[in-house]
Amino acid sequence: MKAARLHEYHQQLRLDEIGEPGIVAPHDVIVTVGGAGLCRTDLHIQEGQWAEKSGVRLPYTLGHENAGWVHEVGSAVEIVKPGDTVIVHPLITCGLCRACRAGDDVHCANNLFPGISVDGGFAELLKTTARSIVKLEPTLHPRDIAALADAGLTAYHAVKKAAPTLYPGTRALVIGAGGLGHIGIQCLKALTPAEIIAIDPSEEALAVAAEGGADRTVTVDGKHVDTVLEMTDGKGVEAVLDFVGERGAIEDGVAMLRDAGSYYVIGYGENINVPTIEIISREINFIGNLVGSYNDLEELMTLTAQGKVSLHTSIYALDAVNDAMADLDQGRLHGRGILVADGV
Amino acid sequence: MKAARLHEYHQQLRLDEIGEPGIVAPHDVIVTVGGAGLCRTDLHIQEGQWAEKSGVRLPYTLGHENAGWVHEVGSAVEIVKPGDTVIVHPLITCGLCRACRAGDDVHCANNLFPGISVDGGFAELLKTTARSIVKLEPTLHPRDIAALADAGLTAYHAVKKAAPTLYPGTRALVIGAGGLGHIGIQCLKALTPAEIIAIDPSEEALAVAAEGGADRTVTVDGKHVDTVLEMTDGKGVEAVLDFVGERGAIEDGVAMLRDAGSYYVIGYGENINVPTIEIISREINFIGNLVGSYNDLEELMTLTAQGKVSLHTSIYALDAVNDAMADLDQGRLHGRGILVADGV
Amino acid sequence: MKAARLHEYHQQLRLDEIGEPGIVAPHDVIVTVGGAGLCRTDLHIQEGQWAEKSGVRLPYTLGHENAGWVHEVGSAVEIVKPGDTVIVHPLITCGLCRACRAGDDVHCANNLFPGISVDGGFAELLKTTARSIVKLEPTLHPRDIAALADAGLTAYHAVKKAAPTLYPGTRALVIGAGGLGHIGIQCLKALTPAEIIAIDPSEEALAVAAEGGADRTVTVDGKHVDTVLEMTDGKGVEAVLDFVGERGAIEDGVAMLRDAGSYYVIGYGENINVPTIEIISREINFIGNLVGSYNDLEELMTLTAQGKVSLHTSIYALDAVNDAMADLDQGRLHGRGILVADGV
Amino acid sequence: MKAARLHEYHQQLRLDEIGEPGIVAPHDVIVTVGGAGLCRTDLHIQEGQWAEKSGVRLPYTLGHENAGWVHEVGSAVEIVKPGDTVIVHPLITCGLCRACRAGDDVHCANNLFPGISVDGGFAELLKTTARSIVKLEPTLHPRDIAALADAGLTAYHAVKKAAPTLYPGTRALVIGAGGLGHIGIQCLKALTPAEIIAIDPSEEALAVAAEGGADRTVTVDGKHVDTVLEMTDGKGVEAVLDFVGERGAIEDGVAMLRDAGSYYVIGYGENINVPTIEIISREINFIGNLVGSYNDLEELMTLTAQGKVSLHTSIYALDAVNDAMADLDQGRLHGRGILVADGV
Repeated sequence: MKAARLHEYHQQLRLDEIGEPGIVAPHDVIVTVGGAGLCRTDLHIQEGQWAEKSGVRLPYTLGHENAGWVHEVGSAVEIVKPGDTVIVHPLITCGLCRACRAGDDVHCANNLFPGISVDGGFAELLKTTARSIVKLEPTLHPRDIAALADAGLTAYHAVKKAAPTLYPGTRALVIGAGGLGHIGIQCLKALTPAEIIAIDPSEEALAVAAEGGADRTVTVDGKHVDTVLEMTDGKGVEAVLDFVGERGAIEDGVAMLRDAGSYYVIGYGENINVPTIEIISREINFIGNLVGSYNDLEELMTLTAQGKVSLHTSIYALDAVNDAMADLDQGRLHGRGILVADGV
Repeated sequence: MKAARLHEYHQQLRLDEIGEPGIVAPHDVIVTVGGAGLCRTDLHIQEGQWAEKSGVRLPYTLGHENAGWVHEVGSAVEIVKPGDTVIVHPLITCGLCRACRAGDDVHCANNLFPGISVDGGFAELLKTTARSIVKLEPTLHPRDIAALADAGLTAYHAVKKAAPTLYPGTRALVIGAGGLGHIGIQCLKALTPAEIIAIDPSEEALAVAAEGGADRTVTVDGKHVDTVLEMTDGKGVEAVLDFVGERGAIEDGVAMLRDAGSYYVIGYGENINVPTIEIISREINFIGNLVGSYNDLEELMTLTAQGKVSLHTSIYALDAVNDAMADLDQGRLHGRGILVADGV
Repeated sequence: MKAARLHEYHQQLRLDEIGEPGIVAPHDVIVTVGGAGLCRTDLHIQEGQWAEKSGVRLPYTLGHENAGWVHEVGSAVEIVKPGDTVIVHPLITCGLCRACRAGDDVHCANNLFPGISVDGGFAELLKTTARSIVKLEPTLHPRDIAALADAGLTAYHAVKKAAPTLYPGTRALVIGAGGLGHIGIQCLKALTPAEIIAIDPSEEALAVAAEGGADRTVTVDGKHVDTVLEMTDGKGVEAVLDFVGERGAIEDGVAMLRDAGSYYVIGYGENINVPTIEIISREINFIGNLVGSYNDLEELMTLTAQGKVSLHTSIYALDAVNDAMADLDQGRLHGRGILVADGV
Repeated sequence: MKAARLHEYHQQLRLDEIGEPGIVAPHDVIVTVGGAGLCRTDLHIQEGQWAEKSGVRLPYTLGHENAGWVHEVGSAVEIVKPGDTVIVHPLITCGLCRACRAGDDVHCANNLFPGISVDGGFAELLKTTARSIVKLEPTLHPRDIAALADAGLTAYHAVKKAAPTLYPGTRALVIGAGGLGHIGIQCLKALTPAEIIAIDPSEEALAVAAEGGADRTVTVDGKHVDTVLEMTDGKGVEAVLDFVGERGAIEDGVAMLRDAGSYYVIGYGENINVPTIEIISREINFIGNLVGSYNDLEELMTLTAQGKVSLHTSIYALDAVNDAMADLDQGRLHGRGILVADGV
């Protein structure tokens, strides 16, 4: 089958013809990839940022955000059968460790992360297991929801952590209203009664944010911190959801956070670098956020089915993966980039 | 009355003879100070670190950790009468704002902080209000428990935040086993079934930690991070309570924290400076901790009455305040320093 | 002033001319009643159901659901001044006990409950304290929101307890779609992503429920339990909010509750009478619900200001209080009955 | 192999020679039963109380509280191998449904309950799956800890639900200090700083309760409700853990519960039968409790390994199962009855 693989860091992916994955264990599931989301993390992988963390050996196939149709199942798989439309939770998990049993399967003691640590979905077929499969209505097309498998799931997971603190009268600030941020805004709207403030340098992104449910939008214009403080009686917001994590976002975000508030770190790039005296005197928190759990993904698919969350996507042929990556890198990609193999 | 006041940053306190505070509002309470704890924050105040944050005008009286006996009460005060033994919650709070009503009075929208932002307890009399008074058994002596009003309360508050995550089989790491850390260890023992690991450069402090309930002690010897990782199957601890916040504690502490764990910032001095990619890929949290609420203080006094928390103290005459501060600064002060005015 | 007072159980209220309440303590506030909600509890009081629990001495003025304008304030009151539009939290609380400090002021150790245990708001003036006053925009008219002070607040409080269990894909069943239930539906919509099922014998009530946000409505027709079970894959709903508490509601409600679900008791009349073997084998919970806290009331007023919660009311002159009570008793009162004194 | 089976309700068990269970699915595990706890539920099953709920077909083997050594494993089992000492979580669960993934495997949508709905452990061999196996130190003997698999786990689970409400200064009342209650007391001691009051008609049980950590003991003597109220300033306790559920326990328990408190239903027999007006005016809760999750069982085994929880047991030969059941029924069984097959 065809697969887009990374052979060397800082190099383009190569379109290889490789063998098909096969069923080995009784819970294995092979999925025909119907859509594979392209993510800023794919650029970071290419740049080698994840080399040490993931411990992956090159070459391997990227793509950690996948949906499709079941192709083949192992002997013990009962929840799906070939032909079913599915979205794939990004991790392969064991179901036996404490984390898997406690709703925190992202921290599975024995996890594999296709597209990060093993072969992913920039290919015709993807291997995963029954534990990672969410069955969908056959009316859904995988390419329309693939990006929810990781980008959307990460945004949802962060919002779900923030939600218990967001009672009526509170404000949530979304830094970065594009891609993930846009999904975060829709999730905030669905899950909380908080007033949502979106901040972004792009007027276009802010217009989309407003459609998605942002109550107020603020352009990054040098005066934006003061603008947000004015909107909040000079006190700042109860929750900052930072989908950027670089280019000044953190310093600004901390300045717009209310005492006793929480800063959700979602985007990444630079450091959280804050004096401890400020952390303790203001009693503020920094909350790390990885992708959500399988149950989170099911919940997000429910919101999608209810029309509460939707995505903007740009479709690329799998063969055009390097073009797509260049467009993402250079800011030409609008919405989430989705790779689709020939004939799908 | 006599009061130890700061007239200029970077200078010693001056023992002044000043007028006594008087009852102004119906809920005011004047307390005869029976013991005033000395805190590293007093050194930080002297050094000007809190000048901007507190907005206080010099000269003023330090001392934010006080216990004593009720001297005089306002017309609407019913819960105590002159002569009652009391410990004083460090903040003066309004009781009307959302935070005060929600168990978070430390973030009272109208708070005053005697010893930080207004006159404190390094004096014969201290002015506070009925909302900040916890009545104690008359058998207790204020000087024995004064340090619980702030140092102890801060440690208790942090432990109470960590406790819900500490089920049987988890580990809590206490960085800095002296002063606050020692109280933290006792509170962890009282509130959680977690295994407690204490780490400190001082063998003496570790011996006291073990008495207070630390299950394991680790000397800071350059190999301590590896030692703690070995104790935890290479994974680190579920909760780090950092009572130091400087001199390498933070870097080490983050290295000993388990994925999905939380780092409680209590001691302060340097910066939390961690790459966002590490925060998100490990999904770790940094939790700020200020002093506890009034209800926290009542709970801590219950633990004290039950013999579950006790303190090591060194008594100084109020007149010797500068000696006490020098001893604290130069590491000669063992246990918590308590100032006691003549005739108390 | 004029006041509608209960002189004898099982008798009509009497319109008396009595002396005006006066400021006694520094935090007292006297409110000109602009609207006083009539509640089924007023009928229960008249019938003597609360006689023992409240310990009140007859005669006294009913009315525990009040809004108006500040008439006079005590010397220590700073948050409002005469003329301000306000809604009155139903309890008078001390602000010093643990419950008041912990966001649970309804269980204030020293509470008074005007209209239940002391004189209430079926009068021209009502006495309360600064702690019970929520200041409103002057554009709001007290009679339009008075019923939120107790009925609305009770519904909001119950929904807030249920909300943390109601993730996307769950269902909340509202038994009784009128009065409180109607507010409950709006609060569920504002606070949770749950699917809302409303059940009521009245088609009219169900139509209003659908407008308020119920996703599905079910008529009480003898087959309603089966209907709800069919809607929920035979498993029942995660949360039952029972605003009725009598006439078969409880037995039906328990039958429609999912294993591991919670039954929120809000309406009252009959007994919860369930075998313990059913409670343990299904692991279900019964959660009592009284009126909400002051902070809950502020949050509810925020939802109201945002247009997310609104009320149907029927206005009666204070002089017609017995007519209003008869209408309520005999099912002729549509929406919430609000008493308004002459000249307001 | 030998198995004690129920052929007819209201009849004694019959010792049958039946075929051995075999590995069918890849995650199956066959355990040599080293100890099988006898439970009041076994009497209830015999009496037919569970006939409808469980839907089991007679004859079948009782015994839902088992520990032993691994005998044989399926092809996909990696976490244990033959010979390992294990305790068996009472349910067989799927690992794929929401409940299993959310730490609530007791409500697994596809669960089997050996000893309740399929063949249990009153036999030489028991069939379960890898998901239900907790591996133990080989130094532990199964008969010493078997009763923790269900009785202990139920007590632990209830205590874990109550723990978040039990801060220093609160009281937990344990009704029924024998069997489960005794474990409950030890778990309360390990997990909470609450004062523990134990109530029981038996002085002997109370003496054991005091050893296990009860701070105060109260004999059921007709004045016991008043005694407990006196111990709690007339207000009652924050949490009642009722391990009895019959013979007046419930009525007394509700009378000893504090306003805003929670009543944990663990023992069963009679009905919770409480007026809704009492539930709402006191805002009290009734919390159902089934057995704990797999993670709960691991936590309980940690407490056991730490010496914080221990059991009193009486050993019976498997052949003497009917004697053991008669002893339990007639109050002659001290501690938990454990059945052990010949040669174990």
